[in-house]
Amino acid sequence: MTFTDLGDRLTGSLTTDPDILATYSCDQSLYSPAGTPVALVRAKTVDDVVATMRYAHDHRIPVVPQGARSGISGAANAVDGAILLSVRGMDRILDVDEANMTVTVEPGIINQELKDALRPKKLAYPPDPGSVAMCSIGGNIATNAGGMCCVKYGVTREYVRELKVVLADGTLTRLGHRTVKGVAGLDLAGLFTGSEGTLGVIVEATLKLVPLGPDPLTALATFPSVTAAMRAVAAYMATGASPSLLEMMDATTIGMINQIGDFGLDENVGAVLIMQSDATTAAADTEAFAAVAQDNGATDVAFADNATDSELLVAARRSAQPAWEHYAQGHGGGQLLDDVCIPRSTMAEFCDRIEGISAETGAMVAVIAHAGDGNMHPSVFFDSSDEASVARAQDAFDRIMALGLELGGTITGEHGVGNLKSAWLAKELDEGNRRLHREIKNAVDPDGILNPGKMLADL
Amino acid sequence: MTFTDLGDRLTGSLTTDPDILATYSCDQSLYSPAGTPVALVRAKTVDDVVATMRYAHDHRIPVVPQGARSGISGAANAVDGAILLSVRGMDRILDVDEANMTVTVEPGIINQELKDALRPKKLAYPPDPGSVAMCSIGGNIATNAGGMCCVKYGVTREYVRELKVVLADGTLTRLGHRTVKGVAGLDLAGLFTGSEGTLGVIVEATLKLVPLGPDPLTALATFPSVTAAMRAVAAYMATGASPSLLEMMDATTIGMINQIGDFGLDENVGAVLIMQSDATTAAADTEAFAAVAQDNGATDVAFADNATDSELLVAARRSAQPAWEHYAQGHGGGQLLDDVCIPRSTMAEFCDRIEGISAETGAMVAVIAHAGDGNMHPSVFFDSSDEASVARAQDAFDRIMALGLELGGTITGEHGVGNLKSAWLAKELDEGNRRLHREIKNAVDPDGILNPGKMLADL
Repeated sequence: MTFTDLGDRLTGSLTTDPDILATYSCDQSLYSPAGTPVALVRAKTVDDVVATMRYAHDHRIPVVPQGARSGISGAANAVDGAILLSVRGMDRILDVDEANMTVTVEPGIINQELKDALRPKKLAYPPDPGSVAMCSIGGNIATNAGGMCCVKYGVTREYVRELKVVLADGTLTRLGHRTVKGVAGLDLAGLFTGSEGTLGVIVEATLKLVPLGPDPLTALATFPSVTAAMRAVAAYMATGASPSLLEMMDATTIGMINQIGDFGLDENVGAVLIMQSDATTAAADTEAFAAVAQDNGATDVAFADNATDSELLVAARRSAQPAWEHYAQGHGGGQLLDDVCIPRSTMAEFCDRIEGISAETGAMVAVIAHAGDGNMHPSVFFDSSDEASVARAQDAFDRIMALGLELGGTITGEHGVGNLKSAWLAKELDEGNRRLHREIKNAVDPDGILNPGKMLADL
Repeated sequence: MTFTDLGDRLTGSLTTDPDILATYSCDQSLYSPAGTPVALVRAKTVDDVVATMRYAHDHRIPVVPQGARSGISGAANAVDGAILLSVRGMDRILDVDEANMTVTVEPGIINQELKDALRPKKLAYPPDPGSVAMCSIGGNIATNAGGMCCVKYGVTREYVRELKVVLADGTLTRLGHRTVKGVAGLDLAGLFTGSEGTLGVIVEATLKLVPLGPDPLTALATFPSVTAAMRAVAAYMATGASPSLLEMMDATTIGMINQIGDFGLDENVGAVLIMQSDATTAAADTEAFAAVAQDNGATDVAFADNATDSELLVAARRSAQPAWEHYAQGHGGGQLLDDVCIPRSTMAEFCDRIEGISAETGAMVAVIAHAGDGNMHPSVFFDSSDEASVARAQDAFDRIMALGLELGGTITGEHGVGNLKSAWLAKELDEGNRRLHREIKNAVDPDGILNPGKMLADL
């Protein structure tokens, strides 16, 4: 069988056009290598995925599963000689079970489109990565995606009930259970969640939903320094608070945001915290937050008392990455975004030492954080045309991950490993853990055709 | 090396005394086969577990990891020729990290003792299996244990952050992460949670904690039939309610409870629901529950307006299993407890059809349920000295699992597979899923020495 034969069998399409392949060869990461693929399959049906995997299995051709390619770790980047297998076109909602509060979807549906479809039924699918408007649910599951709501609602894994998956040899299987609880066998739905396309291709998912909550109330606290803000977060979360959002932005980031839009942010501060509560006790929650913030050095706490003002503050936070990109474009083009997650009690020290890393390497670093979760996003800027600047940035990026590990954290809280951090994954895991990864990968994909050279490449 | 040599190397102890071995050869299940072991290791340290696994690996001796042996699926039962490896004596709390709301424990600590130790710090570890007073945390993790609080707080897996595990060859490894979020590699901590001793021996766990909540408010609703009660639960949960407990007991069970104690329960009813809320909105929550219950045919709703009355109602529910055992002891001794979890919308049909199964098989069946989760616990009674009665009970037990699968559920919501349901696990999973189980087991434990003949035996 040739590519032409495979293409003829698909409801979707197969192309070997080099221009189209080039377009599909990269995700949103700027500094992750991408190889040259041999074909792109745009699947429309489960049978398309099965047929593609059988073909790849028979011919020992690597396969890179792709959703919306909105990741930033290179996990969906092409590798040399691979078939790119896009499931973006499989984007239907198959069933909304209101009585049991679950939804069954194909993997290509965009996260925000799912949210919008559920809203009239007063149901919500909480996980909200920064790329919510363009990322696919299949990609969210493959990376166990997070977002701003995780501090209250948890990550993607907590919403995955049942998966249908096509394995390396084209076998279709059902993992997990649709019920609230279930312990029948090993937790394979959990194992495939976050496996970044290395174990199988997700072709259907049944997800837990929650009732659509009321509009949240929002508070904005201003601090003289990032470390003061971080101490406030640690103190607030240690009270057992359950905010629905708790984000930090440093002064550098605020200045860059003000360059691209007017969100009413004062940049003559050290840092701000944005806190929301969508509980029935929201008014009391924001007051309690204000009190802890002031006890920890906040110079001002403002409240957004309507949905429009609340949304403006969240829009400001969501514009951090576009603002960073805008800044980078005017300053040499280089930006490396980190994603370490650390114990909340260490966030103040982390931010202090980031300043030291910046001073020692000469690389400019701005920081935002899903602070309520200890999930830090330092962004390193550099001149991508200047080798020395690139080297300094890479040095800073590596030092940040080393610092995260030193403080008892992990190299990635939500962005994933891909090919950006595969070498660092090997540093985080001990030898027994690395061996388990190798053993499981070899057992499930003995020919190593599923997304080689990525998450598991250096273990 | 001989057993004597191994014993000499342990901080704990090794015995081959047949009487002691017999005592340690069974968990709490009544009808799960148990083999004859060759030795019992009572480990006191991680090194004891490492030494035992190395010995077992070198000599290809099966090992059955054991906690408090409070399970009811035979997962901790002996197999012929095995070393029983009890970690019950490793029961220290190693660290309470109040700032980050985690606790690090050895596996042998009893669930209730952990709860009691955390209470003065105003922290809670929610999972509360029926055996909470005697089950160990390591066993809870190995079975991904549930309980009455799951309807609000989720199951054990949602509290497991990091595990230290000894693998089949004695390798000690660290899985997972201590931080709130983390996607560095495959979710191996999740894979080992619920693996029932088939992949490794858990020797340390870092668990997420939550703030200790206020005392809950409680409502008791009385229904003319089980199906009416089940319809009320489905309707109430579909409102997006978040009770901290929502339990159902049928009339048969209530009658048996009244035989062993006075909890003030009226047995001239079809069924009762016990509902609790520990939210700040508890008063409104119980009122909302009462309204839905009455809309769905409740003949009476009573409120417990103090902690003592609340605790009495929960004590009544917790006495269901002792009451069943008491009844069984006076009626031939036989009891088989089932544990299917089904979509909430199917609970009324399930209970209707249980009556049919009882009529067709002639086996008496009583039902309680973690109703908010759709987790049904039908209990089949029989005369264990009468072959025909045993056969009828086994038939009813099997039909109940078949019914659960037919309704879109799973054969086990929280009790696990063990050797009691290993044949049924093979029926629940499709061939692709069974193959993944075999591949992963063979990869991680190639000699098959970890708890053979149990969960994975029939896949």
